[in-house]
Amino acid sequence: MRASRFFISTLKEAPSDAEIVSHQLMMRAGMIKRLGSGIYTYMPMGLKVIRKVEAIVREEMNNAAAIELLMPLVQPAELWQETGRWDKMGAELMRVKDRHGREFAIQPTSEEVITDVVRSEIKSYKQLPLNFYHIQTKFRDERRPRFGLMRGREFTMKDAYSFDRDLAGMQQSYKVMFDAYTRIFTRFGLKFRAVAADNGAIGGTGSHEFHVIASTGEDALVYCPDSDYAANMEAAEALATGTRPAPGAALVKTSTPKAAKCEDVAKLLGTALSNTIKTLALTVEQQGEDGTAGKKQYFMLLLRGDHELNEIKVGKVPGLANHRFSTEAEILEVYGCIPGYLGPIGTKAPVTVVADRTVANMADFITGANEADFHYTGANWGRDVAEPAIVADLRNVVEGDPSPDGKGVLAIERGIEVGHVFQLGTAYSESMKATFLDENGKAAPLQMGCYGIGVTRILGAAIEQNFDEKGIIWPTSLAPFELVLCPMGYDRSELVKEETDKLYAAAQAAGIDVIVDDRGLRPGAMFADWELIGVPHRVVIGERGLKEGNLEYQGRRDTEATPVPLAEVVDFIKGKVQQ
Amino acid sequence: MRASRFFISTLKEAPSDAEIVSHQLMMRAGMIKRLGSGIYTYMPMGLKVIRKVEAIVREEMNNAAAIELLMPLVQPAELWQETGRWDKMGAELMRVKDRHGREFAIQPTSEEVITDVVRSEIKSYKQLPLNFYHIQTKFRDERRPRFGLMRGREFTMKDAYSFDRDLAGMQQSYKVMFDAYTRIFTRFGLKFRAVAADNGAIGGTGSHEFHVIASTGEDALVYCPDSDYAANMEAAEALATGTRPAPGAALVKTSTPKAAKCEDVAKLLGTALSNTIKTLALTVEQQGEDGTAGKKQYFMLLLRGDHELNEIKVGKVPGLANHRFSTEAEILEVYGCIPGYLGPIGTKAPVTVVADRTVANMADFITGANEADFHYTGANWGRDVAEPAIVADLRNVVEGDPSPDGKGVLAIERGIEVGHVFQLGTAYSESMKATFLDENGKAAPLQMGCYGIGVTRILGAAIEQNFDEKGIIWPTSLAPFELVLCPMGYDRSELVKEETDKLYAAAQAAGIDVIVDDRGLRPGAMFADWELIGVPHRVVIGERGLKEGNLEYQGRRDTEATPVPLAEVVDFIKGKVQQ
Repeated sequence: MRASRFFISTLKEAPSDAEIVSHQLMMRAGMIKRLGSGIYTYMPMGLKVIRKVEAIVREEMNNAAAIELLMPLVQPAELWQETGRWDKMGAELMRVKDRHGREFAIQPTSEEVITDVVRSEIKSYKQLPLNFYHIQTKFRDERRPRFGLMRGREFTMKDAYSFDRDLAGMQQSYKVMFDAYTRIFTRFGLKFRAVAADNGAIGGTGSHEFHVIASTGEDALVYCPDSDYAANMEAAEALATGTRPAPGAALVKTSTPKAAKCEDVAKLLGTALSNTIKTLALTVEQQGEDGTAGKKQYFMLLLRGDHELNEIKVGKVPGLANHRFSTEAEILEVYGCIPGYLGPIGTKAPVTVVADRTVANMADFITGANEADFHYTGANWGRDVAEPAIVADLRNVVEGDPSPDGKGVLAIERGIEVGHVFQLGTAYSESMKATFLDENGKAAPLQMGCYGIGVTRILGAAIEQNFDEKGIIWPTSLAPFELVLCPMGYDRSELVKEETDKLYAAAQAAGIDVIVDDRGLRPGAMFADWELIGVPHRVVIGERGLKEGNLEYQGRRDTEATPVPLAEVVDFIKGKVQQ
Repeated sequence: MRASRFFISTLKEAPSDAEIVSHQLMMRAGMIKRLGSGIYTYMPMGLKVIRKVEAIVREEMNNAAAIELLMPLVQPAELWQETGRWDKMGAELMRVKDRHGREFAIQPTSEEVITDVVRSEIKSYKQLPLNFYHIQTKFRDERRPRFGLMRGREFTMKDAYSFDRDLAGMQQSYKVMFDAYTRIFTRFGLKFRAVAADNGAIGGTGSHEFHVIASTGEDALVYCPDSDYAANMEAAEALATGTRPAPGAALVKTSTPKAAKCEDVAKLLGTALSNTIKTLALTVEQQGEDGTAGKKQYFMLLLRGDHELNEIKVGKVPGLANHRFSTEAEILEVYGCIPGYLGPIGTKAPVTVVADRTVANMADFITGANEADFHYTGANWGRDVAEPAIVADLRNVVEGDPSPDGKGVLAIERGIEVGHVFQLGTAYSESMKATFLDENGKAAPLQMGCYGIGVTRILGAAIEQNFDEKGIIWPTSLAPFELVLCPMGYDRSELVKEETDKLYAAAQAAGIDVIVDDRGLRPGAMFADWELIGVPHRVVIGERGLKEGNLEYQGRRDTEATPVPLAEVVDFIKGKVQQ
């Protein structure tokens, strides 16, 4: 490509609404252009990167025997009603009516359509397994779109759907996709981690997220440096630590005026936060059979003062699937006390105590006295209060917690979710009656998996991981161009022009994706553009060097240039590109 | 590709709603699958063809220095309101509201968005010319979607937009695109014709349509076999023929009971239809300044009895831009006669007579007498009635009419419109204030062109042109696979399997897009599938032939197979594919 025939548009300053570095740099490098909230035009420089992402994804999906098709953007409401997602998805699902008043969804994903395709195409177990994918525009009407391509409304996703005859087949298809994803992210040249994830509302039997590691990532990833254990924060199990010591102190009701938070109590009493217990009051309201509100049950969750609640885990405790936080009125009624001083000792009404595993192993702890401005110190299970009715994992793990696989302690890093593989099971095939006939001629629901990669999101994640003060640093496999040729005086020096054109032709012939900057910019402006855009390899062609038989190579992360003999430069670059 | 790893799904019968052959064959060959009215999933076999179309389009657009980007599907209403198209486009424009109640269009085309991009990016004449394109999903909420991909609602289009500093530049950009389109359709391997088109409502200074020739095409294409004149029916000019003969007959008022149509009159009087004149009554209603209906003007259009009215041409006659057909009440009032017997001789009220060029040259003609069941015969201009107030081209040309370039006579064939190039001028840039600074620092509106290719429509058009009773016959450049290998007993004969695998590898190495049918079908079913799907080249690998050192080649249009020596088969196929 010649720069004079391409469209390059760089900015010195990012627009003020670009909050994170990837958004700022993509705007400054002219890769995207805002059309509306969360809606971007992919400019030529950005589209080149998207196409590289797509090509790698497509190649590895094909290698993994997935078959590409293309499902429509505009999908009839009827299919979404079959699975109940028309109602469940809420405002995020963009809905549209045609001229006849018929309702449609603009696809945020395509489970319904692919299941509809498959239920009419698949008759027999002999046609299985099958895995269909497409790379298609998606729309999700996010409440608060932001961060450029990281949380847009219109975006590109690769979504694949596998169909198997039984659980073992589905798990095999899942493994094939997991391995393909590992190859894809490896080929992207990004540091990434696959973590076990919670299955969430979709149900199913297993799922993993693929995260690009970046300190700015919004997700906490839990892993064990000594084993292959890895999970996201929602799913990482916090084991019980140690065993409960014997009581050592006496129970004392202590005045703790205005110390409603564990931090304040610990400070006031001059003790560690980890000696305190945090109390959370929950209500579970049973729905009456006639749809009216029914009986209320009250639960008291106990966490160590320095630990964080994990809402997902709470929802999995038997009886707590439909919990909510108790209202202040409920708390006053049940505990006879304002929030901030609750505790398991001496509640007014019957309450089910649910203690985190760590709390169940504590002794001589500090807890609210169910009386404003008072706490107990030296509290002990069994002696001062009944053993907790339920002991469960309620908290987020922290660095240093034991790894659930018993092979060391946990570490935490930040990540950006860019892929998700999911064992769906029969959730969709049952609601949509997608069955096949097995060897005995009996109809059975298809076992499904689904597998997504956020194609446009990859760009943001790659930049969050790879940038410096000058701009983006693309991995070679994702860069809009692998190599930029920067001639010094292309329009003034015959020698420079001739050698540049020769090198351009030779690089193209060698299969290198090369751009020559023939715009006639001053060197400073030219270099600044390409450093901002983030092309990983640069060769400067100048008269002085040419007379000595050299060109100057500089990698995007290099601090200085390296002279390379003219005759060797193509092989040299080819070696760099293939690294 | 191995057929066992691809998805092949053929049908014996087409669904009953498939009215035309391309729709029937695409459904039967498993290329598309209906999701809703005018909305199709592109199945793996169909998507492969779409990708081939896209690749050729992309390559030639890039060669023509157009730059690819990707504009969003969901576009803010505000931009469409700037050009007035939000209101003008009516129900065909699919509109959607987001969760905040803001309005958007699902793009049917992208003039507004590209003009918005360019008005913020282009400052100076030095940045021009520019041509941006994208290949993107479009949605048009057609009143009556039908014919599969020929008139769908969701479809894929390549749309390009050029920006120039002046008219000459724009015309040059237009020429570059015209030439690129010519190369694209040539590479598709389709018989096509570029025809001059009317500019329609968008205005501008010139446009051409590219049509795939097919007897089932819905458009009539006019061309001169002896020159390069070609236009669509709307735009093809009908010249005056010959000169008006002197009157030879006397004017006679003749009883023509129940002969309200020219055909009936000619039959009744035993004369040629071309001796009759057809009368059409038009009304032009001037809008009062206060928006109320204003003064009415009446026009009488005269066409030769055997000619067809051309509505577009009528709209271009001075004063007739806003015409409508007169109501029966108006006709009774103005002509004092029921429709069917009107004529220029002796109208009750003042009427402007607009005669087609042919009519103005007629003598001794037959025309209505403005009295029910009566016509005049032997009528003559000047003698029996005043010369027509206006003489204009009002009709469709017919075969044998003189070519407007004076180089022969016109012929007519049918076509399917698959491309359109359009000189837009400043219509969009003026309404959206997209200007640049010229050499003198003065702001001027950008001169625009727009250029579309109906990517998915190409599939339908190609099939309408190329099919037989067995199925589709793809040109090699568009075929889902260039070559199919049909082994006879792949699962039974070691020899067949070995030679098939060798040939498969050799064909792939030679860059041939090959599929091997390893599904284990019987020969009849296997051949029928590939003939239906339309793969242009087939090689059968059988034990008997192998023992003689031969394979059997058959082109999709061949009536019988040709033996080809095993050692030569790859070169042989390569030669066929490159033809």
